Amino acid sequence: MTLRKVKKMSVYKISFGTPEETVPSKFAPHPLCEVYDGTALFGDKFSFKSTRRGSELSLPVDPSIEIYGFGLQLKRFNHKGTKKYIRPNSDPIKDTGDTHAPVPFFVTNAGFGIYVDTARYATFYCGRELRPTAGEVNISGGSVPDIANADGSTFVDALYAVREGGENNVVTVDIPTASGVDVYYITGENILSVVSQYNMLSGGGCMPPMWGLGCCYRADMRFSESEVLAIARELRMSDIPCDVLGLEPSWQTRTYSSSFVWNTEKFPDPEGMVDKLRKDGFRVNLWEQSFIHPSSPLFSEMLNKSGNYLVWNGLVPDYALESARKTLADYHKTNFVDMGISSFKLDECDSGDYTGGWSFPDHTSFPSGADGEQYHALFGTLYSQAVTASLGPRRTFGQIRNLGSLAASYPYVLYSDLYNHKDFVLGVVNSGFSGLLWAPEVRHAENREDMLRRIETAVFSAETLINACYLRELPWKKHGCTDEVRELLRTRMSLVPYLFSAFYEYHTMGKPPVRALVCDFSEEPESLTCENEYLFGDSMIVAPIISGTSERDVWLPSGEWYDFFTGQKYEGGTHHVTVTHIPVFVRGGTLLPVASPVNYIDRNTCFNITLHAYGSVDGNTSCTLVSDSDETYNATYTVHTVTLSTRGSLSPLYNITGVEIIK
Amino acid sequence: MTLRKVKKMSVYKISFGTPEETVPSKFAPHPLCEVYDGTALFGDKFSFKSTRRGSELSLPVDPSIEIYGFGLQLKRFNHKGTKKYIRPNSDPIKDTGDTHAPVPFFVTNAGFGIYVDTARYATFYCGRELRPTAGEVNISGGSVPDIANADGSTFVDALYAVREGGENNVVTVDIPTASGVDVYYITGENILSVVSQYNMLSGGGCMPPMWGLGCCYRADMRFSESEVLAIARELRMSDIPCDVLGLEPSWQTRTYSSSFVWNTEKFPDPEGMVDKLRKDGFRVNLWEQSFIHPSSPLFSEMLNKSGNYLVWNGLVPDYALESARKTLADYHKTNFVDMGISSFKLDECDSGDYTGGWSFPDHTSFPSGADGEQYHALFGTLYSQAVTASLGPRRTFGQIRNLGSLAASYPYVLYSDLYNHKDFVLGVVNSGFSGLLWAPEVRHAENREDMLRRIETAVFSAETLINACYLRELPWKKHGCTDEVRELLRTRMSLVPYLFSAFYEYHTMGKPPVRALVCDFSEEPESLTCENEYLFGDSMIVAPIISGTSERDVWLPSGEWYDFFTGQKYEGGTHHVTVTHIPVFVRGGTLLPVASPVNYIDRNTCFNITLHAYGSVDGNTSCTLVSDSDETYNATYTVHTVTLSTRGSLSPLYNITGVEIIK
Repeated sequence: MTLRKVKKMSVYKISFGTPEETVPSKFAPHPLCEVYDGTALFGDKFSFKSTRRGSELSLPVDPSIEIYGFGLQLKRFNHKGTKKYIRPNSDPIKDTGDTHAPVPFFVTNAGFGIYVDTARYATFYCGRELRPTAGEVNISGGSVPDIANADGSTFVDALYAVREGGENNVVTVDIPTASGVDVYYITGENILSVVSQYNMLSGGGCMPPMWGLGCCYRADMRFSESEVLAIARELRMSDIPCDVLGLEPSWQTRTYSSSFVWNTEKFPDPEGMVDKLRKDGFRVNLWEQSFIHPSSPLFSEMLNKSGNYLVWNGLVPDYALESARKTLADYHKTNFVDMGISSFKLDECDSGDYTGGWSFPDHTSFPSGADGEQYHALFGTLYSQAVTASLGPRRTFGQIRNLGSLAASYPYVLYSDLYNHKDFVLGVVNSGFSGLLWAPEVRHAENREDMLRRIETAVFSAETLINACYLRELPWKKHGCTDEVRELLRTRMSLVPYLFSAFYEYHTMGKPPVRALVCDFSEEPESLTCENEYLFGDSMIVAPIISGTSERDVWLPSGEWYDFFTGQKYEGGTHHVTVTHIPVFVRGGTLLPVASPVNYIDRNTCFNITLHAYGSVDGNTSCTLVSDSDETYNATYTVHTVTLSTRGSLSPLYNITGVEIIK
Repeated sequence: MTLRKVKKMSVYKISFGTPEETVPSKFAPHPLCEVYDGTALFGDKFSFKSTRRGSELSLPVDPSIEIYGFGLQLKRFNHKGTKKYIRPNSDPIKDTGDTHAPVPFFVTNAGFGIYVDTARYATFYCGRELRPTAGEVNISGGSVPDIANADGSTFVDALYAVREGGENNVVTVDIPTASGVDVYYITGENILSVVSQYNMLSGGGCMPPMWGLGCCYRADMRFSESEVLAIARELRMSDIPCDVLGLEPSWQTRTYSSSFVWNTEKFPDPEGMVDKLRKDGFRVNLWEQSFIHPSSPLFSEMLNKSGNYLVWNGLVPDYALESARKTLADYHKTNFVDMGISSFKLDECDSGDYTGGWSFPDHTSFPSGADGEQYHALFGTLYSQAVTASLGPRRTFGQIRNLGSLAASYPYVLYSDLYNHKDFVLGVVNSGFSGLLWAPEVRHAENREDMLRRIETAVFSAETLINACYLRELPWKKHGCTDEVRELLRTRMSLVPYLFSAFYEYHTMGKPPVRALVCDFSEEPESLTCENEYLFGDSMIVAPIISGTSERDVWLPSGEWYDFFTGQKYEGGTHHVTVTHIPVFVRGGTLLPVASPVNYIDRNTCFNITLHAYGSVDGNTSCTLVSDSDETYNATYTVHTVTLSTRGSLSPLYNITGVEIIK
């Protein structure tokens, strides 16, 4: 279909050269948006070249353009002027583009975004200057660096601080090997609109079961069955909300590579254990890693459905083959799902160039025809497809260490073994640009304050994940802050209905439930560099504090905002705030549904909800609450519009008990 | 030529597929060794595959093989089991393969080395395991990680500590884009023999002028002419040896990119300044960086001999074009060499993925037909060719930040803005595997001890380089250790004749003057992991100390060794030594020529030499001293064999004054 006129919000596809066969869109869900042929409209904007190295795509841009995206970037917010190498990697320590979840999609503040449909390690140069032809010389730049205040440690920083890079008048993409590529040019009135369409192109955002939005606790990997049951009991006894209990590696007989077999010395009665946990309101999540150890029952069947190199003596299954996905799904259903497992944590489907170069070579051959480079880019999404299939019609919400392009619909939250809190916050801010969810998981802490600061960030993120995989005790016990942690996790539980509505918009409209302020407020210049705050749903702005200070600057967009904890009113603008808790602000005019917290969520849960009315609200002000008919993919959803006067039971899930006015 | 029988020491070339046109050997000097056709002898050892991604080369190996090389690696000594990505980069912080000077050449302890003649970013997987066919299953590995002692910071280390990786039974090389490649299979009785042949294949090691082996001091980049002259005077007044005085960026009107024009506000009379310095025994070295600023006189002529992207508003000249090299050489001759400049420091011809992704894109088009990826791999060597040509027949010894394959003959020492002393020592140890020289330059220091420890390492390395580019004062003054520094630098000067002989062997036989112990002693298992000691010439072992301790273990190969400073005797084996100075040992049976130190070297210098006789020496024991007829490439060399009884003048350069016996 060709459309001659640019629609304000649309997705256009332009094909250059001969695209490869193994590309992300081949394995992605059906788009939930129209995709128009953009050749006539936008084809000329690009210059495309197929070379012996692959493909090269260039797009002239206004040098003032701002560029966001590229997946779960933990080291930079605005990528203007930088180079991004789109390659999965577990432990990057610099801003190279490497990440658990790289995505060849960026969005600009100029009304468009670009998704390049490739499974190659593409490199995006987000602003380079082409050589002039004779006569067009621009005699700028070349200042001698100011190293007046440089000492040894800042010398290199000083050297690079003043490099004037010309005009950055072109964005180019270097796509190895491919002799062509499909490009999706997405127009929208703002970043949110472009990102939402990218997510609809991806099949819409995932819709977790409500329990997925509660709290997840992962137990020490050394624990035996009785120790797992004991820590579960302790969580309940100490009134710490917990919906999901996760088991770490040693539930298996072999790990790294994995046997996918219960270690019955440590876990003599897995089924009984799962049963007990379920009765106590826990969903059980199992850690696993995709490489299949020779002792695994999966090994022989997977042998010919695997790449031609082993990793840690384990097979690398080729989940680009439907039959390999089915083998894994069937095995998981029979062995884990049927006994009551609700979700999985899928580890090490990225790779580790910064931790010894582990994982399979980029030139690995897979029976599907994918090579190692392509498969690295697809591994996470395909692996999660296979595991998700095992859960049958039931919705799930798991964790994964690699996702790639067009992955918004996969019900997995990314996590990392990295642990810098500031980087983790940036992950929260950035993940929403690319159809990803990110859990800034909490493990150990330096001290009490660090524990609380990290929990605060976890509470206001897509998943509240406590990963005590190397801690025998509840992590906050040694810091003596159980009461404070309980209170924070209860805050999370009180916001689950609000967050569930946000996820419903993610699912149906592609709107990321957690996102950078620039998505909605790019008209306000402060948003362009606002990298340490984010929207949590439509109505809340979260500005995490990193341990070591209790003050920070907070920028609030135009309008009125109210401190979520104290009710203090703020006008738009930058405020220096001194706080005891994490700065969270609610937009004036919001009707925020706040639930009485529960310790876990099941189908009998009914949320008693108080409507918090912020600032100027009236009878026309509303919010929504969403009910699902069940926890399957076939569920029907009811959207309840709630106003100041709504009271009583909306559905078995919600009961509106009253209003609190905050002015 | 086909040779049917493997010679113990030979270089064999094997062609696979259709090699690319732009490869390192195309630009390298003529080999100084026979190169035999190895197809019949070794072709079958490899499996070669040309795929859509490029070429793939595999070589089955014994899993016990040890692997060294890959250029200036600062993060790992023995690469067995790891992945190395051969890409120039200025500031790598992990063991990825990225380095200022990556080289697709490795050497093993199994009697062979392999050089892959490619300018691509090849990836070497130094031990991977192929998937078994059914029935060959090896049920090993998969131990649950021991995290008993792990806390947050060591968690990831603990996780990866136990990964059992199967057998590592194949080394594979992933060469992008190329549909074929030439491989050089080099046999030798030990690592030294293989490396020496690689260096002869490269045209033999460089032969610096003798002054190049003295001390180089680089002055603060903020200095004006009078300040440069003042620091030079201070060096002479304080009796600090110095042969070369280097100027840093601000001698130019524009830097980053560079104008290549004297800043006459700061330097009103460059010619007069150089003249004064030369009269006071200094050679003058100029910093520069290859990107050409629009204000440069070179700009218009280089415009059409450059790549199609700018870097910092500067042209990237295509030195793969002879005419571009000539343009630069002519300019340098006229403007710098003719006024008395002796050498250059060539900066930023690597690139910076870990410092913002600077430099030209990998897909840049160059008029020579090279693309950006290839040119990154060739940039340093070609740039140094151009600059070296400007010096006419005169030999030089400069600094450069990128070299690549087959670069042994280039008279440049690598340097870095990085500054970890331990990594710098590893650079000294590793550089010798790949035809490279490395200066562990000294800039600032944490304290007095750190200053002395760093100077010690610099003294016992290919070039003694003090880079005070951001320090107005002589760097040791603030630490109050001028006397100790003077003494160390005088030690360096006393060893210049010894080192000059070692370089002569580098030049004529390819033997690296500074190298890892495993080169010569791979029969002794301790050498295989000996990564913090090195041979300095044939007779000395240096074991640097990093600030913070005054003790360490030193491994000495079988035989007798003598502490260079104290004369204390050691047997081969591992010794725990407590020291005040850097541990340096001389092999028993050595006649070491030790000169009375001079403050600088010119053609009038005559070295008064005392022969230090260590351990069991007799009338048959000898050493060599080498005289050159002049400082040009046309010099003839005289090799003087010196014995215990040699006395008096050997040449204008050497006068043997006596013997000292150390037993």
